[in-house]
Amino acid sequence: MHVLVLGAAGMVGRKLSERLLRDGHLGKRDITRLTLQDVVAPNKPEKAGFPVDVVAGDFAVAGFAQKLVAGRPDVIFHLAAIVSGEAEHDFDKGYRINLDGTRMLLDAIRLIGGGYKPRVVFTSSIAVFGAPFPEAIGDEFFNTPLMSYGTQKAIGELLLADYSRRGFMDGIGIRLPTICIRPGLPNKAASGFFSSILREPLAGKEAILPVSEDVRHWHASPRSAVGFLLHAATMDSAAVGARRNLTMPGLSATVGEEIAALKRVAGDRVAARIRRETDAFIVGVVDGWPRNFEAKRARQLGFTTAEKTFDDIIRIHIDDELGGKFVN
Amino acid sequence: MHVLVLGAAGMVGRKLSERLLRDGHLGKRDITRLTLQDVVAPNKPEKAGFPVDVVAGDFAVAGFAQKLVAGRPDVIFHLAAIVSGEAEHDFDKGYRINLDGTRMLLDAIRLIGGGYKPRVVFTSSIAVFGAPFPEAIGDEFFNTPLMSYGTQKAIGELLLADYSRRGFMDGIGIRLPTICIRPGLPNKAASGFFSSILREPLAGKEAILPVSEDVRHWHASPRSAVGFLLHAATMDSAAVGARRNLTMPGLSATVGEEIAALKRVAGDRVAARIRRETDAFIVGVVDGWPRNFEAKRARQLGFTTAEKTFDDIIRIHIDDELGGKFVN
Repeated sequence: MHVLVLGAAGMVGRKLSERLLRDGHLGKRDITRLTLQDVVAPNKPEKAGFPVDVVAGDFAVAGFAQKLVAGRPDVIFHLAAIVSGEAEHDFDKGYRINLDGTRMLLDAIRLIGGGYKPRVVFTSSIAVFGAPFPEAIGDEFFNTPLMSYGTQKAIGELLLADYSRRGFMDGIGIRLPTICIRPGLPNKAASGFFSSILREPLAGKEAILPVSEDVRHWHASPRSAVGFLLHAATMDSAAVGARRNLTMPGLSATVGEEIAALKRVAGDRVAARIRRETDAFIVGVVDGWPRNFEAKRARQLGFTTAEKTFDDIIRIHIDDELGGKFVN
Repeated sequence: MHVLVLGAAGMVGRKLSERLLRDGHLGKRDITRLTLQDVVAPNKPEKAGFPVDVVAGDFAVAGFAQKLVAGRPDVIFHLAAIVSGEAEHDFDKGYRINLDGTRMLLDAIRLIGGGYKPRVVFTSSIAVFGAPFPEAIGDEFFNTPLMSYGTQKAIGELLLADYSRRGFMDGIGIRLPTICIRPGLPNKAASGFFSSILREPLAGKEAILPVSEDVRHWHASPRSAVGFLLHAATMDSAAVGARRNLTMPGLSATVGEEIAALKRVAGDRVAARIRRETDAFIVGVVDGWPRNFEAKRARQLGFTTAEKTFDDIIRIHIDDELGGKFVN
């Protein structure tokens, strides 16, 4: 089968690509070709058991999406997005990529026609929800995003469902929890601090906590995120029916609980590298974000997390990213 | 104040325009100018106490929306849409008008800038909901439309909320119940029969009922619809907050209850003009439609209906459209 990954140079895209290259199959089918796209060229893997094409380009430029799907990939992972903070600061860019780009991709698939109906896995976000919420948000709670990013993701979900209902594709939208611990450099996501207050201290560096410790949020490890994507690509979509957008399972924890887990796993010295410095913009943004979810439907449909506790989330980072060691 | 009505030649648009012309004011402010737009030229009113401009043109053509809003209308009623049946049959047309056109309008408003922030009243639809539902749909129930029309309206709602949150406009989205009794000729809306089984017999004509009598649906009179629009244009939007899209109040009734009301108000002879002829397409479409709503929030915010019973809905039609008489 031919697999296409849009946004393959991003953090989740890289982890997914590595996993596909390592496994050599997706579900029961062998991968025979892999296309990796991003606005900057994703790394070309050194050895792969099948042809890998690396494509650099902006998928929101007219004609580009057509080229991407011309080879009729069987599975398309659409992870390309302008992240929350950037989409809020740059209105035009956020709408151009997150809304227009997504629509161009879906239309390029639709216009191939002739029975072509790929599985499309779309990464949405819990930013489709906006406060006030119930303590744990149920699967039928409405989308009232409080950021342009969440608005654009909610629109992508609606398009995915309609295009799937019409038979143009077989889409599954997955609302990823905030990924924690995000490896690598900080990005422009307003949620970045949830990871950096763990990642930076584990690397011996200082990190800034811009909100209070009682801020509660919803998390999953990168390992869980890749698991969700693979399951979304291979599950029986008939079981999903018309409601194709699913809140993924995750862990609800406060910043204080995150820090307590860091102390348990890595010790007080590491946790002491967190410096408190309130950022009014981030406080305001995070105040409208969800804290906890039921995610019953996704669990019933076979989505599972790799972690049971926040300690696990930290250990997964130490194992997968730091070779089992951290700076004490 | 300057008022702009998009979709002014449609049924609700005509009734709204007539009311604005008759009242001469909107809330406490006098109307000093009225612009009526539709794809076909709306009727130019014969006498009006203020200048009335009639504009014919497609608001989804690039540049057209800019011209419409260049005069900085204080209130914009956006009623222009491809209706449900047509948007389902013609995919491109539905998306072009209902999604692209709406976005062009909102962007034209946004790009004026300089503190321009009109009240924008957007007519959405209960087609943003899709089965299965609870018996009465609450105000926080999610949008899972089962038609492209509902998808396009749900996207319009999201855009309206985001553009309002960003301060580009002061939007209120109102989800109209299915308007009953719709005067005039049948249109391409799949919901048309809810009206025609009453309207046609009252005019001495036969009407076709394409679904079973136990189909339950959610209705409001044209008089109520105009009342909702005027209230949405004049209410204090600060009370609405970030959740700017509201399910309007209405009446939940089965087709059988509609017919029973027709018999009570107009007699058995009139009701005998309804002929049963199942239409599988309409049965399928209507099966996914909502039946009843709580609409608590809209009621709290001051939206009220003109009718208490389905008998009232029929009487309003006889009074407002038939000069108090029907064909016995």
